[in-house]
Amino acid sequence: MAVSPLAPESFPVMAPVAGVRFASAEAHVRYANRRDVMLVHLAPGTAVAGVFTTSATRSAPVRDCEEKLGGDPSPGAAILVNSGNSNAFTGRAGEEAVAELTRRVAEVLEVPQARVFTASTGVIGEPLPHERIAAKLPDLAAALAEDGIEGAARAIMTTDTFPKAAMAEVEADGGTVRIAGIAKGSGMIAPDMATMLVYLFTDAKIAQPDLQALVKAQCDLTFNCITVDSDTSTSDTLIMAATGASGIDVTDSVAFNDALHAVMLDLAHQVVRDGEGATKFVEVRVSGAATDADARRVARAIADSPLVKTAIAGEDPNWGRIVMAVGKSGAMADRDRLSIRLGDILVAENGFRAPGYTEDQGAAYMKRQEIVIAVNMGLAGGMATMWTCDLTHAYISINADYRS
Amino acid sequence: MAVSPLAPESFPVMAPVAGVRFASAEAHVRYANRRDVMLVHLAPGTAVAGVFTTSATRSAPVRDCEEKLGGDPSPGAAILVNSGNSNAFTGRAGEEAVAELTRRVAEVLEVPQARVFTASTGVIGEPLPHERIAAKLPDLAAALAEDGIEGAARAIMTTDTFPKAAMAEVEADGGTVRIAGIAKGSGMIAPDMATMLVYLFTDAKIAQPDLQALVKAQCDLTFNCITVDSDTSTSDTLIMAATGASGIDVTDSVAFNDALHAVMLDLAHQVVRDGEGATKFVEVRVSGAATDADARRVARAIADSPLVKTAIAGEDPNWGRIVMAVGKSGAMADRDRLSIRLGDILVAENGFRAPGYTEDQGAAYMKRQEIVIAVNMGLAGGMATMWTCDLTHAYISINADYRS
Repeated sequence: MAVSPLAPESFPVMAPVAGVRFASAEAHVRYANRRDVMLVHLAPGTAVAGVFTTSATRSAPVRDCEEKLGGDPSPGAAILVNSGNSNAFTGRAGEEAVAELTRRVAEVLEVPQARVFTASTGVIGEPLPHERIAAKLPDLAAALAEDGIEGAARAIMTTDTFPKAAMAEVEADGGTVRIAGIAKGSGMIAPDMATMLVYLFTDAKIAQPDLQALVKAQCDLTFNCITVDSDTSTSDTLIMAATGASGIDVTDSVAFNDALHAVMLDLAHQVVRDGEGATKFVEVRVSGAATDADARRVARAIADSPLVKTAIAGEDPNWGRIVMAVGKSGAMADRDRLSIRLGDILVAENGFRAPGYTEDQGAAYMKRQEIVIAVNMGLAGGMATMWTCDLTHAYISINADYRS
Repeated sequence: MAVSPLAPESFPVMAPVAGVRFASAEAHVRYANRRDVMLVHLAPGTAVAGVFTTSATRSAPVRDCEEKLGGDPSPGAAILVNSGNSNAFTGRAGEEAVAELTRRVAEVLEVPQARVFTASTGVIGEPLPHERIAAKLPDLAAALAEDGIEGAARAIMTTDTFPKAAMAEVEADGGTVRIAGIAKGSGMIAPDMATMLVYLFTDAKIAQPDLQALVKAQCDLTFNCITVDSDTSTSDTLIMAATGASGIDVTDSVAFNDALHAVMLDLAHQVVRDGEGATKFVEVRVSGAATDADARRVARAIADSPLVKTAIAGEDPNWGRIVMAVGKSGAMADRDRLSIRLGDILVAENGFRAPGYTEDQGAAYMKRQEIVIAVNMGLAGGMATMWTCDLTHAYISINADYRS
């Protein structure tokens, strides 16, 4: 499949994070001739936090990870992820596969089974051929290296058209710490539960409950602000590991919080940029709402609307569909106070088309690859921003034809 | 545009409803050479009930109709509808256009202005050229006839590929009454607020508050159970007029209620069958949910899911996406009690693919034009049914290219 036109020019330069080693391999879970398993080893003392899908039908690995958060960090930890098969809706066999794989990883890496976190992404409802993965574990363990992150980012891809990574160095009290992250996902959910997976690593020192709170808060501001097709995966998983290897404590560090935000937002944007069939990157900014929650409702209604997204694909400055989305959002709205901008162009205000606005202005703006839709509700100070992409013929092709 | 492959074979035979007369004309609101205005006259004594969009940005005609429900029925009433321009987001000019048009209809038909109900459907944000409509009113008034309903059904079309009508005769206590209905809509919302409009007529006798309650309840079981693209129009309008000309009282008549349900469901299904780009008609049946509300959440999540709808377009029996939709719905769910059927074929149960199920069975079923997805939550007695269509390349084409 062709790389998304919205992809970054190249994979970023990723400095190693002390205490984190990566390996990847071809286990032939479903596809031949591509890496499909990643293994990560986390040094003793690593705190592990996580945010998971809220789906009522979430997968066996997600349930297993949820139970394991907050355990004793002293003996180190591991993460094992495969692509090609999601091990979701696989009943008791799915739980047995997770138990078996975590046991084998624990054995090979000499970490407790209760510290082995897994994820699976790919087709659902088919038994996970876990023996193929287990058979690769000795090779994976032998190959673990601090610079293996690009291979890991590639191993977790499914319908992604490019591997996703981001990195930051933070000047904290006491010295420099690093944050590195990788992600996969080409839709809030990609086909067949292909899932959004995010793994973040830092050598900073921070206690698990503080890390958990930080990650949860930043998730709400980044990954929970993107949407490709409004669907939600049974397997979405975000895990952050803080090895503490730098010895630098970042509890309550504003700089660390900001850098983590930047890394997570970068990764979230990359997921949108790889949205299935995407040709436009769209930022939806809502201000002036009655509350932040109302602003979020409006932003989501616009970003999720098939009519808005097809208009963007067609480069049509169809602001009427934005009005429609505001109206259906359930947020408090007053037509006569609403204003709508495309970038800096004032399109509508006071319940009517803006006097100076022409369709030609709007049409010229919509030809851009990056579109900003700004809605001011004119009511109070509530604000929210979301990111999405357009809805194109390629989305239909990918999703109507993927599995057959 | 080609007629939908899911359209009925022909326009139904529509018997006249005593007390109701129709006319239609070409007023060139936006398009030349097609009927775009319908006028309906309702005899003195007609009770008028209505259900409208809940959008916070609803149009000027909708707001006007809402205020007029429940007025004195004795002097008769009128309905005026144009296509081509929705008169939505047109500010004060929009309200003035409604005031002017209702005043002119009142004059021509000698009914009070407070009994003139209007609707406009088409492009939004452009001033309604109401003089073109007003200029046709004398001709329309002169042409009013009991058998004019097909012309009326055609005049309210926008992107609809066929006119929609349905009819029933009811044996009530005291004799036979008729119910006739017309509708337009080719999406829950069609492009540019093209709107769903529904007009129902009966010669039965029933007080306005009873009629209102009946219509509202049946709306929840019919039009509120269909979805094409999950978007909501600023102009959706359903109006029912009971002329009482038959002299037969249908208050509390089960037969009348059932017949009204059948007419409304028929029209609702026709709207789905004209869903933009639709090639499959899909019924989603949910049973065994914790509550009816939960069943409805699950049915809507499935019927609205772009991933489910593209899979149907691709004739892919991708039941994993149904599991995903159940999970994201917010309804109480237990993976291990869930069962999924495609028609009569048991696809999944007990948290796993059904033992006897093969992909070939599913693939053969998905080639049908009419698909039933049945989900049993295995929890309690909550039930709901929704209807939708598939999501195809043609939907993208229609909506990306409609206005430019």
